[in-house]
Amino acid sequence: MSNPIYLDYAAATPVDDAALKAAQLYLQSDFYNPSAIYQAARHVRDTVEAARATVADVLGCRDQEIFFTAGGTEANNLAITGVMSLYPEANCIVSSIEHESVLEPAAQYNRKLAPVTEQGLLDLPQIESLIDDHTALISVMYANNEIGTIQPIKQLTELVNAVKTQRLARGNTLPLYVHADACQAANYLDLHVSRLGVDMMTLNGGKIYSYKQSGCLYVSRGVHLTPLIRGGGQEVGLRSGTENPAALIAFATMLQKVQSERKDESERLQSLRNTLSATLSQKISHTAINGSMKHRLPNNLNLTFSGIDGERLVMQLDEDGVQAATGSACSASSDEPSHVLLALGLSSEEASASLRLTLGRQTTEAEINKAAQTIQRAVQLQR
Amino acid sequence: MSNPIYLDYAAATPVDDAALKAAQLYLQSDFYNPSAIYQAARHVRDTVEAARATVADVLGCRDQEIFFTAGGTEANNLAITGVMSLYPEANCIVSSIEHESVLEPAAQYNRKLAPVTEQGLLDLPQIESLIDDHTALISVMYANNEIGTIQPIKQLTELVNAVKTQRLARGNTLPLYVHADACQAANYLDLHVSRLGVDMMTLNGGKIYSYKQSGCLYVSRGVHLTPLIRGGGQEVGLRSGTENPAALIAFATMLQKVQSERKDESERLQSLRNTLSATLSQKISHTAINGSMKHRLPNNLNLTFSGIDGERLVMQLDEDGVQAATGSACSASSDEPSHVLLALGLSSEEASASLRLTLGRQTTEAEINKAAQTIQRAVQLQR
Repeated sequence: MSNPIYLDYAAATPVDDAALKAAQLYLQSDFYNPSAIYQAARHVRDTVEAARATVADVLGCRDQEIFFTAGGTEANNLAITGVMSLYPEANCIVSSIEHESVLEPAAQYNRKLAPVTEQGLLDLPQIESLIDDHTALISVMYANNEIGTIQPIKQLTELVNAVKTQRLARGNTLPLYVHADACQAANYLDLHVSRLGVDMMTLNGGKIYSYKQSGCLYVSRGVHLTPLIRGGGQEVGLRSGTENPAALIAFATMLQKVQSERKDESERLQSLRNTLSATLSQKISHTAINGSMKHRLPNNLNLTFSGIDGERLVMQLDEDGVQAATGSACSASSDEPSHVLLALGLSSEEASASLRLTLGRQTTEAEINKAAQTIQRAVQLQR
Repeated sequence: MSNPIYLDYAAATPVDDAALKAAQLYLQSDFYNPSAIYQAARHVRDTVEAARATVADVLGCRDQEIFFTAGGTEANNLAITGVMSLYPEANCIVSSIEHESVLEPAAQYNRKLAPVTEQGLLDLPQIESLIDDHTALISVMYANNEIGTIQPIKQLTELVNAVKTQRLARGNTLPLYVHADACQAANYLDLHVSRLGVDMMTLNGGKIYSYKQSGCLYVSRGVHLTPLIRGGGQEVGLRSGTENPAALIAFATMLQKVQSERKDESERLQSLRNTLSATLSQKISHTAINGSMKHRLPNNLNLTFSGIDGERLVMQLDEDGVQAATGSACSASSDEPSHVLLALGLSSEEASASLRLTLGRQTTEAEINKAAQTIQRAVQLQR
């Protein structure tokens, strides 16, 4: 049997050769603890700092604003707990379609859920009405992991800046930060933090063809955070623990690589994704696309085939050589329908009849054509 | 020039070929998210669980008592914050020679520092006198990272069990847990948790020839912890974030390997270390050994050469081809004298005149002989 067709790049990506190559030196030959004081270790420290500079360069920020973490979930937790534990009386606003790694830490505090439109997009007037004098943090996914919708981060931060100005005029000095979870965005979208206007942003190596449990949190100068993990004082005290130079150098290498190739790759994947979308919508009756097609990652397709069972469909597709998902892998083990699809207004039944297809660097036209046929057959088999 | 002689294995270890080999499959070929539901991902999940079983087997515990973390610092933080945040009125006792990754999280709560003897060993009657009705946690390093002293964990847990029995008889149901940081112990000591009697234990891949920022926390069934990092619910909700199968499988592989070879390797290193110790003590006047030689890791030597400056000595040794440390790499960047040596009763001046030498798997007799000469010359040069 031929290799399976992998259409679950939002869940995990294979480590790129460039990442392996970048990491290699730091596993056996230059394995030193970057905090040690002999020359060889200082050299490792220099390459860690060079990796930080690479990331900062992509984001258009200062090196000192990049804090390496063990993955996107940790970075999201650090952003939210880091701010909210300093202002226990304050509240935070998160969109109803955030990843669990934002929803759950936020739930420890006064958390307001901002609804989204049927298209899976932020409703800015709604967010504005939720902001009160005690709001300290707004956390919004740059691009959604299930439906791929891209949020209007720039408009949000402009709105927030206006609110901050009014607040300050009234003598309210509580900060009002905007954090963006950009884990799914990094392969395809502009990450320039000053263009976006965000105060904090999460990136994840495991989604950009580098090692899992690598990544970083961008923290704008002037934002004060409590650390989650304390100890030896690495990452200027914000994330203690001996650094993993291999992983963070690989992460920086891949961030630069995917960002430099993002326009061509977006075009290529968008064309393949649109073919897939058109074919499936045409060939399979009662197919609905979930989330805006206009403001959407080029590699994401999320469909509801009315009347089918999404999990059974994914199992069938697996047998037929197509690897896909019903939604986020993180909640794949739970039986509950996707909170993202419910937030769009789908019924439980509709949400459970859904399929997420996410394309990536290895996806070919031949794969897409074959996958379309396979999905068509599998849906018909269930109906 | 020949390769430098590395004598800083307590700071970092090179990744073993066996770890690289164990990890390899999970980087590119089987890179799947272990929470996805297709067969190939379920297979990765199975190997993650097999790695957990391997670790549990070494520790003599149940698989469900092993929680993978991104390194030892995170595991120490999880143990301490996880317990203490549930009992904010309670206090915790930590020894004065703990690593910063125990001292710092404990400092957020009511923290009592237990003194150690001049030999760097726990003073059990002192600990007993510190325990009161509000003590919920005692955290003690199994073996110290700077001076290698091995603590009487079994006697401590026996003492604690007696206190718990008395407490319960008085109707006090506050838990009293013992956590051991075994990061430095894992290469050389028995890790069987029921023989040790501990409730929680930290292990670190980066110190056992596996990947940095890998490791685990053993948590005995019945111990309740608050998670540090929340989200998708991985590790039974105690450590969310997509697992890094490559790293945790490598960690389990190396834990099994170093533990199966620990007796022979301990004997070999103890002999080399004793040679080094004897030579330096004999050839260099006014040399003192810090910490008990009887209850000590076989690979550790920590010396004070009165009148010298430890940091300058380490720099000189580096030029002469020997990589060593003044103390913990984590605090190497700070100028303060080692809190461990101060706790032993050394003056600031004596503590600053110290050298830590830690041997490992690649250390040879020829290296030790050459290092002894180099150190002798470098100390004489300074005096």
